[in-house]
Amino acid sequence: MADPAFFQVAGPFTVAEIALRIGATVAGTATPERMLRDVAPLQTATRDELAFIDNRKYLDAFRKCGAGAVLVHPALTNEAPENLCLLVTEKPYRAYAVAAQAFYPEPPPVPWISPDARIDANAEIGEDSRIEPFAVIGARAKIGRRSLIGAGSVVGAACTIGDDTRVGAQVTISHAIIGARVRLYPGVRIGQDGFGFSPDPDGFVKVPQLGRVIIGDDVEIGANTTIDRGAGPDTIIGAGTMIDNLVQIGHNVQIGRNCVLVSQVGISGSTRLGDFVMIGGQGGLIGHLEIGTGARIGAQSGVASDVAPGETVMGSPSVPIKLHHRQVAALKRLATRKGR
Amino acid sequence: MADPAFFQVAGPFTVAEIALRIGATVAGTATPERMLRDVAPLQTATRDELAFIDNRKYLDAFRKCGAGAVLVHPALTNEAPENLCLLVTEKPYRAYAVAAQAFYPEPPPVPWISPDARIDANAEIGEDSRIEPFAVIGARAKIGRRSLIGAGSVVGAACTIGDDTRVGAQVTISHAIIGARVRLYPGVRIGQDGFGFSPDPDGFVKVPQLGRVIIGDDVEIGANTTIDRGAGPDTIIGAGTMIDNLVQIGHNVQIGRNCVLVSQVGISGSTRLGDFVMIGGQGGLIGHLEIGTGARIGAQSGVASDVAPGETVMGSPSVPIKLHHRQVAALKRLATRKGR
Amino acid sequence: MADPAFFQVAGPFTVAEIALRIGATVAGTATPERMLRDVAPLQTATRDELAFIDNRKYLDAFRKCGAGAVLVHPALTNEAPENLCLLVTEKPYRAYAVAAQAFYPEPPPVPWISPDARIDANAEIGEDSRIEPFAVIGARAKIGRRSLIGAGSVVGAACTIGDDTRVGAQVTISHAIIGARVRLYPGVRIGQDGFGFSPDPDGFVKVPQLGRVIIGDDVEIGANTTIDRGAGPDTIIGAGTMIDNLVQIGHNVQIGRNCVLVSQVGISGSTRLGDFVMIGGQGGLIGHLEIGTGARIGAQSGVASDVAPGETVMGSPSVPIKLHHRQVAALKRLATRKGR
Repeated sequence: MADPAFFQVAGPFTVAEIALRIGATVAGTATPERMLRDVAPLQTATRDELAFIDNRKYLDAFRKCGAGAVLVHPALTNEAPENLCLLVTEKPYRAYAVAAQAFYPEPPPVPWISPDARIDANAEIGEDSRIEPFAVIGARAKIGRRSLIGAGSVVGAACTIGDDTRVGAQVTISHAIIGARVRLYPGVRIGQDGFGFSPDPDGFVKVPQLGRVIIGDDVEIGANTTIDRGAGPDTIIGAGTMIDNLVQIGHNVQIGRNCVLVSQVGISGSTRLGDFVMIGGQGGLIGHLEIGTGARIGAQSGVASDVAPGETVMGSPSVPIKLHHRQVAALKRLATRKGR
Repeated sequence: MADPAFFQVAGPFTVAEIALRIGATVAGTATPERMLRDVAPLQTATRDELAFIDNRKYLDAFRKCGAGAVLVHPALTNEAPENLCLLVTEKPYRAYAVAAQAFYPEPPPVPWISPDARIDANAEIGEDSRIEPFAVIGARAKIGRRSLIGAGSVVGAACTIGDDTRVGAQVTISHAIIGARVRLYPGVRIGQDGFGFSPDPDGFVKVPQLGRVIIGDDVEIGANTTIDRGAGPDTIIGAGTMIDNLVQIGHNVQIGRNCVLVSQVGISGSTRLGDFVMIGGQGGLIGHLEIGTGARIGAQSGVASDVAPGETVMGSPSVPIKLHHRQVAALKRLATRKGR
Repeated sequence: MADPAFFQVAGPFTVAEIALRIGATVAGTATPERMLRDVAPLQTATRDELAFIDNRKYLDAFRKCGAGAVLVHPALTNEAPENLCLLVTEKPYRAYAVAAQAFYPEPPPVPWISPDARIDANAEIGEDSRIEPFAVIGARAKIGRRSLIGAGSVVGAACTIGDDTRVGAQVTISHAIIGARVRLYPGVRIGQDGFGFSPDPDGFVKVPQLGRVIIGDDVEIGANTTIDRGAGPDTIIGAGTMIDNLVQIGHNVQIGRNCVLVSQVGISGSTRLGDFVMIGGQGGLIGHLEIGTGARIGAQSGVASDVAPGETVMGSPSVPIKLHHRQVAALKRLATRKGR
């Protein structure tokens, strides 16, 4: 179970209640009245805990599993041991997410404005929000309702932050308009100057960065990620997009809805992503590209040309994924063949 | 136009005034007396706004442009639509930078020492500087005139910071001597211990890091970038060098003047760069290398040997750029040829 | 010598005292009674300073060296100039580390609880610890003895931190149990939510992150590095492991003892490393891998499959090091051969 020093468990729930909540079918050794008190990993779950399997790598653990019930895809039910209660669903990981939210609902921030926060007289703080110690809120900034500004965070002049948004500790925000239900993890940097200067051989001339950062609803931005404001146009992060830790987003970048950017990705200035784009860890994109909706870019790829909607590319420089696999295989053959 | 909630525009200026300031020739449908009230992107600029074109990708927008005047290279003037006033210059991006600075001059910091800053009694703060809330300034530290120390930033004992330098929020500085007109963006880490230890199999022995970080005038350092202090020699960043976000600079690295390091670059310990070196995003250099003046290192390159002055390398491992292009082409041919 | 504004030197010590302390043999022009007042680089060391050589790149400097004594491997003693006192040891860098610690012993933190720190009434602070201004310590947190919590750092509820641990400025810690003699450099992020959600095309479902971060004794974690807490299992960093700046550690990752992770490495969720694993700068590992004890992963490698104990891999995608070198050579031949 989760360490009670850090997490407070709700419940218990019967197997049937969980099945109803996630839309799963009870199967295997069905015990719908069994009480489930927690979620747990497949390897350690006991009779009153709920587990899930979503990766064939863990089939061995599944076969020995002693959980009270396991969320499982229909294709894996025949691998289940006897006496295991199954909750069958096409999306076991999603079902686990919903069930875990039931056991561990996230409490809203406890409303509080710390006397140690410094809030400009012309800033507005919405009802039931929480402003932690040593936060600094600038003139004309607006914070929504039930939102959190973590310890030491700085919200610059005129920035707006929506309702139910959680800003972790030590985040800096300037020149930004941020939606509702957004999460910014600790150390996120939003709205600083983009990397804009005229690269003269005898000293650079700085280009004023005159745009903003616009962040849609339901976006998550990982720890120590940096998002520069636009140079003239805005830098835009579409609603529902998930950004991991240590990602770099250059000025004027536009990212669509529900994209996924894994950690340490870098996107250079003025590149635009459609919706549902996925970029693997450490992938890099040069500037001024168009990446189509649904495109997928493999980890460590180096993308220097547009990617069509739905296309998958990989490698540095990136090529279509099939060609990438052929290149990898061809190079291996070339390096190992006899008679070299 | 730039959002007036965040930016305050100066001016207006006539086309002739701008032409004079940037050294451009008025051409096309010349209207030197026209009033320009702002800068704007090529795509949206209206009759009282100034735009620029610096990338052939945007020729379509140029051909439809409705700006009051456009900064353009002589080679593109024949692509201009009728009725467009041109400001012809060999360096349109530089000209834009200067013009935008005229419309959006950066005000100096408003002098203030926050009562919520903690400044050691033996620190010196120059005239007209600004120390924001929750900043901490250590013993014997010296801050120059008209400089800014952002909210929550920590300046360690005995560090010196020059005149007109701007330290963003939540920067940490120790063991460092920093020049004038330097900009450190939020979350920059300067002067912490380098990664120095004796890699013994049975536990590492830490090597005391006894050097400093020396940063020249007019340097910019991007958000969340980390620069370790020297192990014995100093870590040195030459005047005028531009460093983007999330860059790593190891101990003893010496960087010359006017270099450009794009985001997520990593430079390992004791490597030395001449002047005017450019490194593309996510490029990595091992330690103890010599990179000559004017060398260029492509994005995502992995550099494991010295690079001669003026040379351009790319790839991982990096090779001269021409060889890199041949390698990419040869591998593609190998992977796609018939009869495999 | 180290800048006395930043560093305070102990000593002096005779050559014989140093030789005894590090277990070296005095050779060359042996002057065991000579007083050494400091350590210094090979290139600049004078008659009362101690230098070391650990890289054949610096043989020229060694041959001209004017130091009072030089730590040197037996294999290089015949390169020494006349009149140079040698301290011969199999591990000159380790010997330098020990000697430098003698000249520059690190003082313990000066005990102090700043009145500007905000410490929950139910937190426990060990004897002789130092809590700097604007630090925030949550309910039920426990800080050990002689430990340091730097300015602005945030220690979340119920976290524990061992004895003699140094937390730099502006570190955030939540859901974590941290050992003794650990060093966290500025801007480290520990314990925030992992990147866990069910990637549904119509909006993501967040997966509660119910694990912790467990950090063993004697670990170092570099500036702005991010370590997410586990999703259910814990994220674990084994004792003695050294992590450089800007590294990303995903949820559920388990790292063994005495590993070395160079800067900008990224390790995806649930991957496990044995002991003594080394990963070069910017290396990336996908999730759910097993990396055996003593494995070595080259800089910029992209690892997508398990690595056996003791194996060395390199490249993206990574292959055994010998195959990697062959691939690099074969590709170069292919690109440069005549008749293409």
